[in-house]
Amino acid sequence: MDTDSLQELIALAEELANAARSKARHYFRSGVAVSTKSDASPVTQADREIESELRSMIASRYPGHGVFGEEHGGSIEAGLSWVIDPIDGTKSFVCGVPLFGSLIALLNHGKPVLGVLEMPALGERWIGHSGRTTLNGTEARVSSCTSIGEARLFATSPDMFSGPDAEAFAALSHKVGMRRFGTDCYAYGLLASGHCDLVVEASLKTYDVMALVPVIENAGGVVTDWDGHPIDMDFSGRIVAASTPALHEQALALLKHAD
Amino acid sequence: MDTDSLQELIALAEELANAARSKARHYFRSGVAVSTKSDASPVTQADREIESELRSMIASRYPGHGVFGEEHGGSIEAGLSWVIDPIDGTKSFVCGVPLFGSLIALLNHGKPVLGVLEMPALGERWIGHSGRTTLNGTEARVSSCTSIGEARLFATSPDMFSGPDAEAFAALSHKVGMRRFGTDCYAYGLLASGHCDLVVEASLKTYDVMALVPVIENAGGVVTDWDGHPIDMDFSGRIVAASTPALHEQALALLKHAD
Repeated sequence: MDTDSLQELIALAEELANAARSKARHYFRSGVAVSTKSDASPVTQADREIESELRSMIASRYPGHGVFGEEHGGSIEAGLSWVIDPIDGTKSFVCGVPLFGSLIALLNHGKPVLGVLEMPALGERWIGHSGRTTLNGTEARVSSCTSIGEARLFATSPDMFSGPDAEAFAALSHKVGMRRFGTDCYAYGLLASGHCDLVVEASLKTYDVMALVPVIENAGGVVTDWDGHPIDMDFSGRIVAASTPALHEQALALLKHAD
Repeated sequence: MDTDSLQELIALAEELANAARSKARHYFRSGVAVSTKSDASPVTQADREIESELRSMIASRYPGHGVFGEEHGGSIEAGLSWVIDPIDGTKSFVCGVPLFGSLIALLNHGKPVLGVLEMPALGERWIGHSGRTTLNGTEARVSSCTSIGEARLFATSPDMFSGPDAEAFAALSHKVGMRRFGTDCYAYGLLASGHCDLVVEASLKTYDVMALVPVIENAGGVVTDWDGHPIDMDFSGRIVAASTPALHEQALALLKHAD
C-alpha cells in the first residue's frame, strides 16, 4: 500500500463505521427479534443488515478485496481483505446495554494493519494504524502499568472459560488488583486509552479480535494468544492484551502455570 | 406528604441528580486518585464531593430531613429522609466504563417513596414515584416475561456471591435464558425499561438499593430480598428484582432450594 491508497482505505473504514453506527442505533432498543445461531449465540436483523451493507460498500469500491464476516462468512485474499463483526456484544445489544461495538479490520497478506472499534450507542470510535491509535480523533495511549498486583483486568464473562481455561483465568484473577466483566470489545478500547491494563478472554473468533490488534498495538500495547503467538487467521480463540510487555509476560506466565 | 410538598421534593431530587451528573462527568476519566476503604471497595474524591454537595443541598432546603449516605454516614429520621449513593459502580467509574450511577432515594417513615437512578456518563435518568417510572421523561415499563427459561438475568459480578449464595446463584443461572455481568445499578434501569427481566445480587448495602425500589415497583416490577421480604433499612444485602410476580416467585424458589 502506498500513502495515497492507505488514506483511501482509512476513509472507507470510517464510512463503514458510520454506516454501522447508523444502522445499529436504528435497531438498538427497538424490540428487534432475536434468534439463536447453531453455536447458541444470539443474532438479530441488525447484525445481518449491517454486515450486508458493509460488504456491499466494500465490493463496490474494491471488488478485488477479500471479505470475511461473522454472519455471512467469505474468504481472506492474498492481498487486501476486510474482517467484519457487525455487532460484537450481541447479548448486550439485545439487553439494551450500550456496550456493543462494530469491528472492522483491514488485513494485508493476512496481517491486520488497520482496525476500527466503533461503539454506536456511545458515539466512541477507536482507529489504529501506522503507529497511532485515536479515540474520536484524539491520540489514545495505554497505561504504564507493569505490576500484575495493580492491574485492572477485564473479560466479557466468566462463562467464556471452561475446563483448564477457567482454572488458568481464576489463577490470574487471584493476582490482579481488580477484575471486571461485561464489556465485550469495549474492554480493548479502554485498554488502548489507559483505563484498564489487561484483557484476557477465551472462546473468541477471528472476527472478534482482528480489528482490535491494530487498535491495541498502535496505542503501545501488546496482544497475542495465550501461547504468546501473534493473532492471525489461525487464531486459537484465547487472547491476552496488556498495556506493557512486562504485564503481558506476567499474565502469560500465570495462565501457562495453571495449564 | 401533600401534593405540593411532593412536587417540591421531586424538584429537589432532580436538582440533586443534576449536581451529581455534573460533578461525576467532571471527574470521569480525569485520572482521579483511587483509594481503598476498610471494606476493600474503591473510593475517589468524586464520590466524597458528590455526596457532600448533595447533603449540603438537602440541609439548606430541608434541615429537618434525615440523610444517610455511603461516604459520610448519617441517620434516618422518623419522617422524611434521603439515602444517597454518590457513585454506585465506583469500579466502573475508575476504569472508564460509563455504567456507573448516582442513587438518590427519599424515604417516608423508613419506606422508599421516590427513587432516582441517574447515569451521569450516559445521560439517562430513571425516576420512580406515585405509580409511574420515567426514563428521561418517557414512561418506563417492565417486560411481561413470566418464564425463567426465557429470562435475561443480570448481576454486577459473580464475585459478589460466596458460599451458599454462590451455589444458589449458580442454580438460578443454569435455568435462565441468558446471564450478563458488569452493570451495577444500571441493570435495575434496564429492568424498569423492559430490556432485562431479572436482577439478582448479594453483598449490597441499603444505599445501593433504596433508590431502586421505587424505580422498579412504579415500572410494574417486583423487588424483595432473597427471603421475599420488602427492602427496608434492615436490608440483608441480597436482592431479587423481577419484571413479573411469576418470575419473581420462580427466582425465589430456585434461590431457596439451593440453600
